[in-house]
Amino acid sequence: MQSAPAIQKLLDELERLPGVGPKSAQRMAYFILNSDKGQALRLADAIRDVKDTVHFCSRCFNYAQAELCEICASDKRNRSIICVVSEPRDIPPIERTGAFDGIYHVLGGALSPMDGVGPEDLRIAELMARLGSEDVSEVVLATNPNIEGETTASYLARLIKPLDIKVTRPASGLPVGGDLEFADEVTLGRAIEGRQIL
Amino acid sequence: MQSAPAIQKLLDELERLPGVGPKSAQRMAYFILNSDKGQALRLADAIRDVKDTVHFCSRCFNYAQAELCEICASDKRNRSIICVVSEPRDIPPIERTGAFDGIYHVLGGALSPMDGVGPEDLRIAELMARLGSEDVSEVVLATNPNIEGETTASYLARLIKPLDIKVTRPASGLPVGGDLEFADEVTLGRAIEGRQIL
Repeated sequence: MQSAPAIQKLLDELERLPGVGPKSAQRMAYFILNSDKGQALRLADAIRDVKDTVHFCSRCFNYAQAELCEICASDKRNRSIICVVSEPRDIPPIERTGAFDGIYHVLGGALSPMDGVGPEDLRIAELMARLGSEDVSEVVLATNPNIEGETTASYLARLIKPLDIKVTRPASGLPVGGDLEFADEVTLGRAIEGRQIL
Repeated sequence: MQSAPAIQKLLDELERLPGVGPKSAQRMAYFILNSDKGQALRLADAIRDVKDTVHFCSRCFNYAQAELCEICASDKRNRSIICVVSEPRDIPPIERTGAFDGIYHVLGGALSPMDGVGPEDLRIAELMARLGSEDVSEVVLATNPNIEGETTASYLARLIKPLDIKVTRPASGLPVGGDLEFADEVTLGRAIEGRQIL
């Protein structure tokens, strides 16, 4: 395909985005070409702005524009419960549930001996320092329910329990609205093990 | 959800792109936040560059960075066949087929009395001027196979035929690899009407 070089460059850059293949890149590129200049530049500027102004929250390592992220800076959060997640991207889905009003700590990954990721590569020392200086009654270990996430959660639980802080983990079980018939065995096993009195 | 304002702005702008909902916008935004600054700015610059440098080809109205688009400027194209399309985005799929080596003319839309789009809103005068000045033996009317596209093709066919130029339209018929059983009636009807001798 013979495209103008600037269009080819835009297609290449759009295709780097997650979930964007050649066809959706083309759709987006033609949308950008077709839209008025002001609107297209708002997207370009928004990209530039996040790279210029967003850094890590000095307390929890979520993305932030100020010294503290919006959640750490809020006076509506319960500071005695810290939810530990692997990445900043894990925070929005938890926030959307409305089921958590505590604050966060972002590890920056998960333990993975296979990939050479050890405790010193994660923000575990920073978490332990927070547990020493902040008045924390519970730590929710919301790492992913996969091998690396489970390993990380077990490791952290062993470190934190001696501090006399409650350590919890979100329940594993059947997805709401799902079909028992189609649940995988591991999930269904966890759901039965974790059965609750009604 | 409490996000830094710059992140919220980026999410809003990404969601304006076609085919991008809240979840994919979030995935893209975190990818951009997570990627190194140079890479993120290449995307921002690519958007800015197309808006700064891309305009319409002075001959065919495809997108172009120079006076002429890459296709009009190429010396490998057959200038005696013009393929008429509604929008610049219709050109890449035709180019990918490798079945057409002529040049193009972009109308900038299709006739639609319902939406108040008449012949004077499309680049039809420009097409007729080309047919008068260029040495054209065939015009392929590759507007979309829908009501507006068919109306536009019929209108153009009536205008061009008196000039003693061959007027053609891509065949309608069964998609290759498709199932006869699942073809819609109109498509199957067209395929039977247009049956070819083997």
